[in-house]
Amino acid sequence: MSILIISKQKNTKLLVNALRKKIRNTPIYVYPEDTPKEIVEYVLCWKAEKDILQNFPNLKAIQSLGAGVEHIFDTQNISQKIPVARIVDPQLSEDMWEFLLAITLNHIKNLPLYHSQQVKQEWQQHAYKTIKSTTVSILGLGKIGSFVAGNFGALGFPTQGWSTSKKEIKFVKSYFGESGLIKMLQNTDVLINLLPLTNSTKGILNKKNLIQLKKGAFLINVGRGAHLLEKDLLKLLDAGYLSAAALDVFNQEPLPPDHPFWKHPKIRITPHNASLTNIETALEQIVENYHRMKKNQPLLNQVSHKKGY
Amino acid sequence: MSILIISKQKNTKLLVNALRKKIRNTPIYVYPEDTPKEIVEYVLCWKAEKDILQNFPNLKAIQSLGAGVEHIFDTQNISQKIPVARIVDPQLSEDMWEFLLAITLNHIKNLPLYHSQQVKQEWQQHAYKTIKSTTVSILGLGKIGSFVAGNFGALGFPTQGWSTSKKEIKFVKSYFGESGLIKMLQNTDVLINLLPLTNSTKGILNKKNLIQLKKGAFLINVGRGAHLLEKDLLKLLDAGYLSAAALDVFNQEPLPPDHPFWKHPKIRITPHNASLTNIETALEQIVENYHRMKKNQPLLNQVSHKKGY
Repeated sequence: MSILIISKQKNTKLLVNALRKKIRNTPIYVYPEDTPKEIVEYVLCWKAEKDILQNFPNLKAIQSLGAGVEHIFDTQNISQKIPVARIVDPQLSEDMWEFLLAITLNHIKNLPLYHSQQVKQEWQQHAYKTIKSTTVSILGLGKIGSFVAGNFGALGFPTQGWSTSKKEIKFVKSYFGESGLIKMLQNTDVLINLLPLTNSTKGILNKKNLIQLKKGAFLINVGRGAHLLEKDLLKLLDAGYLSAAALDVFNQEPLPPDHPFWKHPKIRITPHNASLTNIETALEQIVENYHRMKKNQPLLNQVSHKKGY
Repeated sequence: MSILIISKQKNTKLLVNALRKKIRNTPIYVYPEDTPKEIVEYVLCWKAEKDILQNFPNLKAIQSLGAGVEHIFDTQNISQKIPVARIVDPQLSEDMWEFLLAITLNHIKNLPLYHSQQVKQEWQQHAYKTIKSTTVSILGLGKIGSFVAGNFGALGFPTQGWSTSKKEIKFVKSYFGESGLIKMLQNTDVLINLLPLTNSTKGILNKKNLIQLKKGAFLINVGRGAHLLEKDLLKLLDAGYLSAAALDVFNQEPLPPDHPFWKHPKIRITPHNASLTNIETALEQIVENYHRMKKNQPLLNQVSHKKGY
């Protein structure tokens, strides 16, 4: 048997070296190097080319190299019999929370505005919003979303969250369903998208929904690029419905140089950097799942083929 | 008797109108309008001209219109018999904390760097620091400093504070004295100055002290402009000892257009906007102190002539 790593974007050098120290009796190949197809049983995968996994007839398990798995389900035709796992990094939740708090405070304390004033040597005070006067709403109350929402609430932000079902999270008002979504959006100053990408969440950040937000609301997208209808966002920003948007994820990454987002004065771009998977944490889970695969046990952080997350 | 308002910078129109509704039987003058000097007993003051208060022989109390009083002690020769009070706004502490958290997270999550990359359409990830790996030190543990330090600590930042005497604040390691200062600085990633301006704190942000900070530390000055030796800061930034500085207060405000701080790539300027006194809160304390003055009672939030705060 062997392990194959297929990763389009992530730098896998550190990972491969570390993995070879932990798993000594199994060959580890890195795509596209020449690999005997029949012996590949465990694939570690990040944004592989379409249908590439069909080339490995004896595949027994697929491990995503990050928190997301939609890059697998969207491009590969996988038998329900092959388990798929994702990385769950507890530090990822903490990092995501810190990043989202930074982006939110940055906005309500007008720091981008002061930066643009500094360029013009302009001294002008502006009223700021406070934590207690800023209602934050989180789309998606999975592991990371629940953690983030609970933290915003505990710090004093009026906090709401939307999910497929009702959730009990301290300091967080829970909404669900289509009517719950509209109700929540209508009382939102800062909307944070942390949904997984599925058929039913794709394009959820569209004009119909975003126009429900309080006038001058602020959008933060740290889910996936495909959650957002880019043209709808541009229209709402230009018409003043939204005051600004902070985007960490995009349909195409890196964001192409000629994309209109780069130069838009109300759009703040970060390069998919909200939280970066810690290599030690990833390594532990990959090694554990290698052993579980060999023993035909359920994987750690295995996802549902049906739900897609 | 009468009340006189002397304010160089603050817009007093709203205050005067509100005050006239609360104190109906005493004339309220606004400098420089013609005022019978003998009847002035209560002065509300913000950055008055030098020695102007000597013109009022029957002055019984001085109320600063903000949290600081050094603008009074530095420019006026006041008998120890005349009590001086400042405004203590509980929301000011909360606002200051939120501003300092915004500025700190903004820095450790590289948001200014991503902004400058966006201008160049550059997609490049950078490692970020986390809350638990960022040691924050607060200079000054008065009302606002203690509150801010306790909050940084509670959120998970390793937090230290320096003051004239040892303080007991949950989550905060307390330092005092000259040797305590050096010890604290040597283990500091983010230094926040919240000291009052006195003879012994003037110029405390100098090369000798700042060079003790951990290499690449970040300085935030929300105390007073005169705490900082500007040339020392520029030298330390240019030599790479400090990674950046966020300044909200300056020797001269507004900061003159030709000042080198405006264009320095490692300096972030905000226009003395960290926390703005709430007019309702100020009004209440001013009215209360007016009544106390009339009854010869100690003032609310009275300061020490000797200490200067």
